[in-house]
Amino acid sequence: MYLNRNLHEKFMSPNDIQMIHEYTLKVLDEIGIIFESERALEVFKHHGARVDGETVYISEQLLHEALKTAPSEFELFALDNSVKIGKRYEPVTVGNPAHFQIIHTDGSIKNTTLDDVVNFHKLAETSEVIRMSTSVGYDTDDIDKTLDNMYMPYVALGLKYSSKPVYQANAVTPLNWKNKDLTEAAREIAVFHKKFFDIWDKPVVLSNLALLSPLAVGSEVLANMFGLIEENQPVIFIDCGMTNLTSPPTLMGSIIQSNATLLAAIVLTQLVNPGVPAMFGSVSGPTDMRTLQLAVGAPESMLIQMGLLAMGRFYNLPIRTGVGVSSALDADYQAGAETMMMLTTGLVGKSDFILNTAGPLATYNMGSYEKYVLDEITASYLKRVNQGIMISDKKACFDLMKKVGPRGDYLKGRTSRDYREEHYLPKIFNRHGGNSTVLIEQNGTLRDRAGREVKERLEAYQLPETTKTQQKLLNEYLPPQFRY
Amino acid sequence: MYLNRNLHEKFMSPNDIQMIHEYTLKVLDEIGIIFESERALEVFKHHGARVDGETVYISEQLLHEALKTAPSEFELFALDNSVKIGKRYEPVTVGNPAHFQIIHTDGSIKNTTLDDVVNFHKLAETSEVIRMSTSVGYDTDDIDKTLDNMYMPYVALGLKYSSKPVYQANAVTPLNWKNKDLTEAAREIAVFHKKFFDIWDKPVVLSNLALLSPLAVGSEVLANMFGLIEENQPVIFIDCGMTNLTSPPTLMGSIIQSNATLLAAIVLTQLVNPGVPAMFGSVSGPTDMRTLQLAVGAPESMLIQMGLLAMGRFYNLPIRTGVGVSSALDADYQAGAETMMMLTTGLVGKSDFILNTAGPLATYNMGSYEKYVLDEITASYLKRVNQGIMISDKKACFDLMKKVGPRGDYLKGRTSRDYREEHYLPKIFNRHGGNSTVLIEQNGTLRDRAGREVKERLEAYQLPETTKTQQKLLNEYLPPQFRY
Repeated sequence: MYLNRNLHEKFMSPNDIQMIHEYTLKVLDEIGIIFESERALEVFKHHGARVDGETVYISEQLLHEALKTAPSEFELFALDNSVKIGKRYEPVTVGNPAHFQIIHTDGSIKNTTLDDVVNFHKLAETSEVIRMSTSVGYDTDDIDKTLDNMYMPYVALGLKYSSKPVYQANAVTPLNWKNKDLTEAAREIAVFHKKFFDIWDKPVVLSNLALLSPLAVGSEVLANMFGLIEENQPVIFIDCGMTNLTSPPTLMGSIIQSNATLLAAIVLTQLVNPGVPAMFGSVSGPTDMRTLQLAVGAPESMLIQMGLLAMGRFYNLPIRTGVGVSSALDADYQAGAETMMMLTTGLVGKSDFILNTAGPLATYNMGSYEKYVLDEITASYLKRVNQGIMISDKKACFDLMKKVGPRGDYLKGRTSRDYREEHYLPKIFNRHGGNSTVLIEQNGTLRDRAGREVKERLEAYQLPETTKTQQKLLNEYLPPQFRY
Repeated sequence: MYLNRNLHEKFMSPNDIQMIHEYTLKVLDEIGIIFESERALEVFKHHGARVDGETVYISEQLLHEALKTAPSEFELFALDNSVKIGKRYEPVTVGNPAHFQIIHTDGSIKNTTLDDVVNFHKLAETSEVIRMSTSVGYDTDDIDKTLDNMYMPYVALGLKYSSKPVYQANAVTPLNWKNKDLTEAAREIAVFHKKFFDIWDKPVVLSNLALLSPLAVGSEVLANMFGLIEENQPVIFIDCGMTNLTSPPTLMGSIIQSNATLLAAIVLTQLVNPGVPAMFGSVSGPTDMRTLQLAVGAPESMLIQMGLLAMGRFYNLPIRTGVGVSSALDADYQAGAETMMMLTTGLVGKSDFILNTAGPLATYNMGSYEKYVLDEITASYLKRVNQGIMISDKKACFDLMKKVGPRGDYLKGRTSRDYREEHYLPKIFNRHGGNSTVLIEQNGTLRDRAGREVKERLEAYQLPETTKTQQKLLNEYLPPQFRY
């Protein structure tokens, strides 16, 4: 059982939650949610919901009934390991999907390549913090663009290079899998994972499904959803409203809007396949009206996500929120400050699943190897913060204090077990004292040290063991240069 | 009335607080505290405390009696402004004292000069975040070393270049004021401020007095204390234990030890001058046993300070804790992450006074102009976080949501008052989207942008107005090149 500090209680009172809940009911009942899918609309009609064009109106009763079967937790399996996702468990810290670009150790910025995709899998695999493998159907410049199916190669790369449970960051679209029914494609992906793991009756791939703001669920996402939940695979609905642009100008309004859209989508999953896990996810944030950009690492972003975390807990749903993302353009001071603040939501807040715990910059557009290993330390700091102060008669150390006495010295003999139990000692971060010029000369800048850690981790990486059958499965999709 | 989120309640339960309180009573009664001052020992004896050599044993009754007169809040005055310090008020965010060295915009590291001291006063004076002037008796290389009194020149510089209420970071010692009784010197400093402000019956200078770990108060600090509290000036006792070195290896033990020493010192002030404000301060932290350095920005540091914050609130004392300090060697990712985490204690925790809100690096040894303006943003982020989510029928924006509807657009006309009320838009931090290479070329790196902000602030700075009498007072002590 994980020590849950429920930090969100300091930001949302039971009255606040009740008020947002009631406005959410009004939104669902009076404004409605657009579902861009005939099949979804039919499901809602079949269950007695009022449907007008593509707009679905959900009553309190229907919401209540559907939420009854929505699981509050679930377990996701890989070959020889699994993660448990839910309130009782440690938040599952997940790395980054591939970004459009990478800022490299020398400061140069280049488009992401297949090698980068593989390297990030290697970092995830060798990480003590990152607990899942992130597969992503992003089309790097060097993927074979003549392929109809540009999605499965990335799935195969993930399964080859990481043995951790699989998170699927992107849905299938007509761009990454041409000439294919999307529901069929999503089913195929689910079945491929089942086949690879030889696990047929449990969750094996957790997929992200992005909602549209305001108050809509798009056709491609719905097509993917049907395929995945028919195969009993868990999904995450993720909302990313931007204040004053795609959501109201206030934080409260934005929370209500996200809440309503998320609940509507989760209701649908339960009407289709009662009991299938569906996560309540939000990375909504403020718009910086000077630039019209999502200010992903802004304080308002933390607050909106904290508010939605409180709402997710109110409905007893598994929650994805909190991100190690910054609007910064490099692994600089802004990146450190924003990442620390944003990860506090998930790690002390606490949510159940934190995508982008490590690596992303420039509002998700850019990745950084250095930031990845630095973010791991930030996450570790917050995990230690969440552990808190250990309180017991033993930990009071009264007898030791008496023995040492005023003006005495505690530095004696071997470093005690108590010290080791209570202190997290990071790599890379400076902990030396003395002449800073000399220290920088000797150990390099933080970027240098992070760069060395990346290099060592990539060198120490070992390919997970797989059977011939598995290799054959993957070879069908792996880009030629990455085949077994 | 400031919105106090009492974040410390998520880290210390009432039972935890009670247990630490009880162990503290045992420490005060059975182990005792060393006071290196005949005068202090006589005061304690006079009030019935058991004294053995330099060790004073304080009973629960004596503690209880003394705490009765200790104020929970006070106001500190300057010429035409003041700060209120206490639980009901916003935490007073205070800048940095001068450091031994400065890391400059070009990355070069140089010893601090008088010009740097003045520049930091100028930054404080032009700051929207920093609310006090920090005077510090640090002997820069370029002070006239033949002076007996090398303390007052820094006091005079502070009063000349900043009009904000005065915080005095260092005590007088035989090194910075030669051939002078320290109590007499401290009185003179207090009287000098009274004279300068022409305020004779109110607090005008708040002084820091550092305790010794474990469990002792040094002779110089006590000599200063007597002078200051006789002049009815408030003091801050500040404890900086280091786990496993000068305090127990556990966080709980360190908290008990700091708590006991702080309470003992505060008891003394009330026995000497009942009702004089005495603050409960701690910047204690963990030792990194690999380097034997204070890990000032470590998670254990945040936890110890959060624990002591809870204890200070328990005794209803005004509290100093939380620091914008990092072990980092530059205004880099580590500096951002550690500063954000450490300032959370003070700004969301919350404490009443936060020294080193902006500027310090390398565990207090180094200052950075760039970090100063970046830390101001970090503090502003956390102030916004502390404001929280505004909840009301108006803020729900239901009618607007209905008007815009699903898939609608909120971007219409002028940016609303609600948006402006709820969004903090920082300078310097990147909020642009698009091509990162181009953005860095156009706007420079974060360090470049911070450097420009520093330059603009120093250029925009205007010398506070003073009377001829005040100028004459200061000219007596100002280094020649800084005289009116």
